[in-house]
Amino acid sequence: MEIKPYKRDFEYSYALGAFVTFELIDAVPEYVEKVLVHSTFTDKEKLMRMCAGRRIPVETNDRLIAKLSDKENVFVIGVFKKFTNMLDGTRPHLVLDNPSNMGNLGTIMRTSCGMGIFDVAIVGNGADIFNPKTVRASMGSFFRIRCEHFDSFDEYLDVYGSEERAVFPFMLDSAKYLTPGQEHGPIYSLVFGNEATGLDASYASKGTPLKIAQTEYVDSLNLTIAVGIAEYVFTKT
Amino acid sequence: MEIKPYKRDFEYSYALGAFVTFELIDAVPEYVEKVLVHSTFTDKEKLMRMCAGRRIPVETNDRLIAKLSDKENVFVIGVFKKFTNMLDGTRPHLVLDNPSNMGNLGTIMRTSCGMGIFDVAIVGNGADIFNPKTVRASMGSFFRIRCEHFDSFDEYLDVYGSEERAVFPFMLDSAKYLTPGQEHGPIYSLVFGNEATGLDASYASKGTPLKIAQTEYVDSLNLTIAVGIAEYVFTKT
Repeated sequence: MEIKPYKRDFEYSYALGAFVTFELIDAVPEYVEKVLVHSTFTDKEKLMRMCAGRRIPVETNDRLIAKLSDKENVFVIGVFKKFTNMLDGTRPHLVLDNPSNMGNLGTIMRTSCGMGIFDVAIVGNGADIFNPKTVRASMGSFFRIRCEHFDSFDEYLDVYGSEERAVFPFMLDSAKYLTPGQEHGPIYSLVFGNEATGLDASYASKGTPLKIAQTEYVDSLNLTIAVGIAEYVFTKT
Repeated sequence: MEIKPYKRDFEYSYALGAFVTFELIDAVPEYVEKVLVHSTFTDKEKLMRMCAGRRIPVETNDRLIAKLSDKENVFVIGVFKKFTNMLDGTRPHLVLDNPSNMGNLGTIMRTSCGMGIFDVAIVGNGADIFNPKTVRASMGSFFRIRCEHFDSFDEYLDVYGSEERAVFPFMLDSAKYLTPGQEHGPIYSLVFGNEATGLDASYASKGTPLKIAQTEYVDSLNLTIAVGIAEYVFTKT
């Protein structure tokens, strides 16, 4: 396996940075191919101990790190095989329809992991969830999340839709507002659209559309904030 | 006045992009010095109409736009004089102690404007609130917000602290959790620390510290998300 700057069609990807690599090794050691370390990295002892216990090879290679890390300040890189998950059908889900910003997607995974929603469905082919930018923005939460891809929302519903699962598409033209005391059962799917376009009208018939109240002075909330508010309300109510 | 790439000590700053410039002209026309437009901009008619009504000069200057916009895809730039605000002491406030990321600060202003908290206090000298990156990330909400600077939190309290104002510092080691049904009066200050360091221990005695419940799998929530959740709960409860 030759290690080159990341491309979407690769069978492997990179955890950029020591913190994210520690999370990688801790959460999914079975997918770690190799760890690259910079000769000036100061916490080598911990890293060597973690890798030795899991028989992960470590290579000091300053040039390769510079080449892979794209100008960012990176001293450790975890090389890992891409993996597929299935969602847990008994748990709440977050569903993202064609998220387009890799940094946002990572931030959303970090939030979701923090709020306790560990299952994320991605609808559509826009997003490369394994992009190192997503992994890095997730601060390693990426490795704690079950993430499954679907070509369409109907395909997602075919697999995970059920009597018990309540679907809440978040849409700006919904008549119903999310409330801090939002009523819901234990199994639900919170559905959010693309940063620029939101969910298309067809989602209105897929469940109970909700909107987050906002003043007239903004077009919409940032997607990552809207997801954070909805997940907070649903997991804490 | 010579228009050069932005520096912090300038007496003016830039709204980069048509959307942000429209917001600038709409919200605070008195501070607009000039509008620069690219020869290929397609919505020139609306722009000319807005500027003519307010006697704002418009200059077509592709080279200057390229120089100021730092590789971003920008067709309109609003040049505006920096201004100072005072907060409204009868309203809820958001207080940010040394925010360090200009993009985050802009996103927070957009969120705050969307949630209906229009008064933002900045404590400390770290942040350049007028940085074009902040203005752009705010999607123009920057111009709807009253933003006032204080050297210290005590200085802020000297001016705006009162019997009626309840102070809620958000701290990870607080014993008390924010709840969706959080009780509070009409006048409050939500206080958040720096992205990396949070609020220092001295804030614990300044009011009622709160934390946002999170799983063990993340160190903390992203600052912008934490502010969004807190503002949603306080403005909707």
